[in-house]
Amino acid sequence: MKQKKDTVYLDHAAATPLLPAVEEVMQPYQEDYFANPQAVHQEGVAAQAVIKEARERIAKVLGVQASELVFTSGATEANALALLGAAQAYRKKTGEKPSVFLSAIAHPSVLNISVSHPEIVDVEIMSVKKSGEIDLESLPDNITGAAVVSVEHVNSEVGTLQPVRDLSQVRGRPYPLLHVDASQSAEFYNVQPHNLGVDLLTINGHKLGGPKGVGLLWVRTGTPLAPLFVAPTDIQVGDYQRLRPGTPPTALIVGLATALNLAQGNYEKNTQIVRDLQQYCLAELEASFPKMRLNGSRDRRAPHNLNVTFLGTDHDYLAAKLSAEGIVVSTTSACQAETGEGSGVLARLSNEDPRGLRISFSTETTRHDIDQLLDALKQLVEVDAKI
Amino acid sequence: MKQKKDTVYLDHAAATPLLPAVEEVMQPYQEDYFANPQAVHQEGVAAQAVIKEARERIAKVLGVQASELVFTSGATEANALALLGAAQAYRKKTGEKPSVFLSAIAHPSVLNISVSHPEIVDVEIMSVKKSGEIDLESLPDNITGAAVVSVEHVNSEVGTLQPVRDLSQVRGRPYPLLHVDASQSAEFYNVQPHNLGVDLLTINGHKLGGPKGVGLLWVRTGTPLAPLFVAPTDIQVGDYQRLRPGTPPTALIVGLATALNLAQGNYEKNTQIVRDLQQYCLAELEASFPKMRLNGSRDRRAPHNLNVTFLGTDHDYLAAKLSAEGIVVSTTSACQAETGEGSGVLARLSNEDPRGLRISFSTETTRHDIDQLLDALKQLVEVDAKI
Repeated sequence: MKQKKDTVYLDHAAATPLLPAVEEVMQPYQEDYFANPQAVHQEGVAAQAVIKEARERIAKVLGVQASELVFTSGATEANALALLGAAQAYRKKTGEKPSVFLSAIAHPSVLNISVSHPEIVDVEIMSVKKSGEIDLESLPDNITGAAVVSVEHVNSEVGTLQPVRDLSQVRGRPYPLLHVDASQSAEFYNVQPHNLGVDLLTINGHKLGGPKGVGLLWVRTGTPLAPLFVAPTDIQVGDYQRLRPGTPPTALIVGLATALNLAQGNYEKNTQIVRDLQQYCLAELEASFPKMRLNGSRDRRAPHNLNVTFLGTDHDYLAAKLSAEGIVVSTTSACQAETGEGSGVLARLSNEDPRGLRISFSTETTRHDIDQLLDALKQLVEVDAKI
Repeated sequence: MKQKKDTVYLDHAAATPLLPAVEEVMQPYQEDYFANPQAVHQEGVAAQAVIKEARERIAKVLGVQASELVFTSGATEANALALLGAAQAYRKKTGEKPSVFLSAIAHPSVLNISVSHPEIVDVEIMSVKKSGEIDLESLPDNITGAAVVSVEHVNSEVGTLQPVRDLSQVRGRPYPLLHVDASQSAEFYNVQPHNLGVDLLTINGHKLGGPKGVGLLWVRTGTPLAPLFVAPTDIQVGDYQRLRPGTPPTALIVGLATALNLAQGNYEKNTQIVRDLQQYCLAELEASFPKMRLNGSRDRRAPHNLNVTFLGTDHDYLAAKLSAEGIVVSTTSACQAETGEGSGVLARLSNEDPRGLRISFSTETTRHDIDQLLDALKQLVEVDAKI
């Protein structure tokens, strides 16, 4: 059952391993700082101080105020708080039911929001180009009645980098708010929200070498937001964490702070390392499989992601065969995978075969790993069978 | 900063230390099973198998079906899912806005629910006796228009054991549902939901020797529940976890399963050990401070909790002095403590001084720990100054 040491893991877009440096930092907070950080005795105060320090470190890394950070259980909750929280605050303010604008290739965990909360919010779908980029031309000149426009900074399946700053220019003020999920981008791009020009930003622990079960939502001071769970009152300024009650998980928060610090402190170097692997892998794939299709954008693409289609090939079978050989890639987002319905994202981008292989790297990936993948693909994919 | 080894920690009601056995079990799942459990490759399948096994172990311990368990980020989220999820499903079914019945000494994280969601739910407060027990006589003969009655199995501040089975007898069917938060009771009582006669049950990791950042809601099959975040559709039977999307935190879930297994497997032994400490501490306190008030019930009281008032004493000052001497107790729930408003629970139970000391034990607590507390109290509390 234990994961084999010789596994070639190329699914970093789904989950990253916990960095040893992060694990080490977390350990004492599991063992020694177990007290409830909300308690006022010395043990509680010590745990609270640890969280405060982590919060301030994150604020510094992101160039924001510490009071603007809301720790959550992960990206799904942070995204839900951003979208539902903004929609409910909008409705309270205007008396009207707002819409939210989502990309046609948005993550399933946000696309279902109006299905789950039809009384609170409508969803408007933003068209995307074949590259996966949001088609800004297709947006109405004047977006009215919308609480929030929400995009992934980098699409989790095809790696397309969205034109967040352009979106920031065309949206209205104060509404719609602009929310960006930086789960796929924080290791490779500057995700400082004031740099991106956004109002709400999601960060996810286990997508950047941190632990599972923790994430955060950054909220620009002054942004009206309603709680998902309970909170003493609606909070517009001050301590946004009050929007999210519950005992703060000290070890997880410290792990998130450490991982985010490493990710943002090294994003240029990370990009350089991983871009090199990506270009090598792509060049080799294109040399071996001349009719292979690259899904998403060639230029506006995050460095850790390749998504390719071998026309006429059963990609689920291919991924399973690779997995049996210890080479781990995916065919769609992990959240979509369980449904067995294939990739909704690829179906949106192409009328042809909407299946593909997602190959995603980290700075720990080696050329040898990629060579193993290439060798296996040459064995498994029928070069001559392609159209 | 590091917690001193000679600390006398008597605030187990606020947070329990992570059990070494639990930490040991979690470690490989942080390091090796980092893959996304929703992925379909061998690494994802291995992580999913680990979660499935943990889920089945919990189901066996609780005497329920594995599909009825929803892993959450902790008790606050589980409680919110129970109350808001039931209220929204009720409203969808009947077209009417329901109420929820909460105890007058409910935890602040649920009492604020109608403040936060005034459009979804009203709150009705159930009177409690001086013992802290819900006054069943004060309930209407026929509770109508209520989605759910929610109580803590054991009150977190005064340790009162609620008459859950009696409540189960008097409530209507199918509404109101009966929800119980077993955060304070799972180490000391059988909390099997079919034994208690409830429809919804909350379990909290860090209140029973497990990790922070994980909990669960058990949902009786057939109970209509709406999601807090997003979900594909309303789910009435089958896999209730679909109500709560997000990457499952493998290590935390395995930790929760291990801790709950230990808690429920040893609850009688745990009770015996801790009851003995409680009775010793209470007898010594009453001998030294004859006019001390015991808050809550003398008989229907969880074994790990004492809550006492030294009349005329500043309990916040007393707790701070004890803390400075390395003796950790609290004056109210940790979640309430930050507000500095004192105990809302004690204010409900007494017209006199609504302050007190909560002293809470674990099976690791020793008589020597209690003797240190007693010695310090004798120094700090003016025996003669009492009324």
